[in-house]
Amino acid sequence: MALKARVLYDFHSENPGEISVRENELVTVFSEEELEGWLEGKNSRGRLASSPRPTWRSSGTTSPPTRPITTRPITTASPRPNPLAIPHFQGSDDDWDDDWDDTLPATQQAKSTATVGRNLNRFSTFVKSGGEAFLLGEANALVRDGDMMCVVMGKHGPEWQEDPYPFTCTIDDPTKQTKFKGMKSYMSYGLTPSHTNVQVNRRYKHFDWLYARLVERFPVISVPHLPEKQATGRFEEDFISKRRKGLMWWMNHMTSHPVLARCDSWKLGKRKAERDELVGANFFLTINPPDVPLDLQDVESKVEGFKTFTKRMDENIIVVNTTINEFGRKQMIGFKKEYQKVGQSFKVLAQAFEMDQQAYSVGLNKAIAYTGEAYETIGEYFADQPRHDLDPISDLLDIYKGHLANYPDIIDVQKGALTKVKDCPQQESDLHERCNIISCATLAEIQHFHRTRVRDFRLQMQHHLQQQISFFQKITAKLEDALHRYDEQ
Amino acid sequence: MALKARVLYDFHSENPGEISVRENELVTVFSEEELEGWLEGKNSRGRLASSPRPTWRSSGTTSPPTRPITTRPITTASPRPNPLAIPHFQGSDDDWDDDWDDTLPATQQAKSTATVGRNLNRFSTFVKSGGEAFLLGEANALVRDGDMMCVVMGKHGPEWQEDPYPFTCTIDDPTKQTKFKGMKSYMSYGLTPSHTNVQVNRRYKHFDWLYARLVERFPVISVPHLPEKQATGRFEEDFISKRRKGLMWWMNHMTSHPVLARCDSWKLGKRKAERDELVGANFFLTINPPDVPLDLQDVESKVEGFKTFTKRMDENIIVVNTTINEFGRKQMIGFKKEYQKVGQSFKVLAQAFEMDQQAYSVGLNKAIAYTGEAYETIGEYFADQPRHDLDPISDLLDIYKGHLANYPDIIDVQKGALTKVKDCPQQESDLHERCNIISCATLAEIQHFHRTRVRDFRLQMQHHLQQQISFFQKITAKLEDALHRYDEQ
Repeated sequence: MALKARVLYDFHSENPGEISVRENELVTVFSEEELEGWLEGKNSRGRLASSPRPTWRSSGTTSPPTRPITTRPITTASPRPNPLAIPHFQGSDDDWDDDWDDTLPATQQAKSTATVGRNLNRFSTFVKSGGEAFLLGEANALVRDGDMMCVVMGKHGPEWQEDPYPFTCTIDDPTKQTKFKGMKSYMSYGLTPSHTNVQVNRRYKHFDWLYARLVERFPVISVPHLPEKQATGRFEEDFISKRRKGLMWWMNHMTSHPVLARCDSWKLGKRKAERDELVGANFFLTINPPDVPLDLQDVESKVEGFKTFTKRMDENIIVVNTTINEFGRKQMIGFKKEYQKVGQSFKVLAQAFEMDQQAYSVGLNKAIAYTGEAYETIGEYFADQPRHDLDPISDLLDIYKGHLANYPDIIDVQKGALTKVKDCPQQESDLHERCNIISCATLAEIQHFHRTRVRDFRLQMQHHLQQQISFFQKITAKLEDALHRYDEQ
Repeated sequence: MALKARVLYDFHSENPGEISVRENELVTVFSEEELEGWLEGKNSRGRLASSPRPTWRSSGTTSPPTRPITTRPITTASPRPNPLAIPHFQGSDDDWDDDWDDTLPATQQAKSTATVGRNLNRFSTFVKSGGEAFLLGEANALVRDGDMMCVVMGKHGPEWQEDPYPFTCTIDDPTKQTKFKGMKSYMSYGLTPSHTNVQVNRRYKHFDWLYARLVERFPVISVPHLPEKQATGRFEEDFISKRRKGLMWWMNHMTSHPVLARCDSWKLGKRKAERDELVGANFFLTINPPDVPLDLQDVESKVEGFKTFTKRMDENIIVVNTTINEFGRKQMIGFKKEYQKVGQSFKVLAQAFEMDQQAYSVGLNKAIAYTGEAYETIGEYFADQPRHDLDPISDLLDIYKGHLANYPDIIDVQKGALTKVKDCPQQESDLHERCNIISCATLAEIQHFHRTRVRDFRLQMQHHLQQQISFFQKITAKLEDALHRYDEQ
């Protein structure tokens, strides 16, 4: 069924089978059904081909002249582009280097090693990230109003201005896809953002690409780490479930970060994003600091305090993670076995008693046999429980381990700037201003870390305790059920 | 304060410091306070001395001319003597052979090896118990009406006539006593029968003496075994508590057995009981069988079935006992350790978080620390739990292990009688009658075993499950408490 749609922004075909479309052009889409982000249709000049769907997404103010229901995917009224309509925007899936897949050895750092300008041979993060270049006034790019990120002065210090259009994004169980006539298989995840409620399909490598872009782009932002790459067992249920949960956490941290959630890379697509100029040093050009500059001494002490905090947190979450993983293992094996052994012994008792089948014995015999079964079931409950209330904590700790690994670099950038300013003999006002921008961004990021941490750990501990409570209530109910079997008939 | 009391039965003094009293004599008691079963007072002829309290117990129909409240201990209206006013009735505690104490090696069989009549050199229980002698018509003793035990035909076969005056008896925590100026110590238990509600003090050796009397006296009654003798650690809390519980079970089985609860040995006291004639073969003279004799074939098959039952139960309760003891040990050590480790790791997490003392962090930090404590407490709950819900099952299994060990002998007596009757060429009616008496007693005892077993295991499994439910509810409450700490202030 053909649908009319209005084009969101220009797209230039670069491959056979693609058609170029212009912003605001009225096009015909042959079917709502998309194929890996592409739709079939014709442009206003009548050229037939595929064009990627996001190009045609309405900017919200113009309503296309088609029936509202059938055009839902392309008329979603959102004042911002659907951030999840990437990353394989430009070119089909096969345009991606297949070696660069989710099976790369974990040792290979996904983090970009791209550098800016003349400092190619220097290795400090301060230099590599573009912090130094920015501080020295070498950053230079066109910054539009829409690119600006405000740091505001909050009750607890500098913080990122809140995202005015917060959204979340669910990731559904992935499905196994094949291409090259089944020669190659991969898992495809269904992503559904809350503000469109439309599912799009993405692969791990698309996340991985986006991650690398974001790291390269934002020098003092802690980009959440993706769940680990894994060479084998990609299609095993446990791995898939674990990766999905890891991606959920990742997505949660992406969408709840005021800067990352607004980032263009979400929608620019592969080719364009890789040509984006507002990366590294230029990112700092987009930061709008509060009116009053920060006290550098105060910044230094706060950053130092945070450094100590992260070190301690990093050490201690390892203890927690080891302990709860071991606890989970004990429940799944040891606890289960103990309850099942008790259950079996009660059943053995019932078997002996069943040799006396007098009327007044039968009820008891059945009740004891039932109690045995109840204990076996409780053993299963124990084995099943860790995935409900321990694994989520473990997942949470994993994402925080990633953040904690990011902060030494972030602190490095801020410290580099501070040292540079201190070293500078004359009070160069521009240098100070730029150092203030870096400091504001760093402290806003630290503030965001703490807020997110408090939110996440509160929610996760609550979840854990609620699950534990349900678990013990389930056991209690089972035991009560068994107890009633002893009521004399 | 002097009290008047009426003497229950004759007592002849045999030692200095004792006075003789006659049945129905009105005596003066100087104080309600008894010293190891003895009271101080004077007899109607004005002789001053101690006399054992039970002697003065009212038979219930005569009310002494004293104030009811102060005379409570000696005017309790019970139609039977207080069975617990023994076993050290006659003579003071020092009359007992001190070697024959509760520290005898467990290897020494407390069971009587006394034999009857001419069969001194024969070893089968049938012979030793007096079964053969009775069957052969060699039993001979004066049997009073009050000594008769009725076997009645119930819905499920022969059973002991129910005790018309059922009672129970509690055993309180024992206290350590000394004599010979502290040279010798022993534990004294406070026994309180339900029908008098008066506490008397007894030692393990008194139970042991009574046990031996009962075994000797009742050839086909399963006298409950006493808790094990123990050479060391007699004054350790755990041992004392365990022995008290063992004695409670023993007492429970004594008082709920229609024959044992009525038994004279309870009140005759050491010297007289040891002169009792109605033991062994003569016990059968006291049995009054139902009018219609049993079918021997039927008896044989029932006894055979029971033999199989006991063998299976004996094997299976060993499995249960081993399992629950191991389960208890796991809870006290492993489970406790796991929960405490999780608790400690949460506290470690809280410690890291406490380095960030911003207002919005403090509540979470405290909540996580509290959760850590909650888990440590739950660990303690696990360690404490087995004594509430596993140890009682273990105690129950112990008393049943004792009964099951008794049955081969009981079955031996019955089988011996049956074989003798089968071997007998002529149909001797007296022999059949006497075999019927033995069979009736055996089947009544088996019936009693099953009824008691069903009662005990039902109650104990209910108790176990109730305790487990309370335990898990206690854990749930603790977790709910922790959960509320996360409510944002």
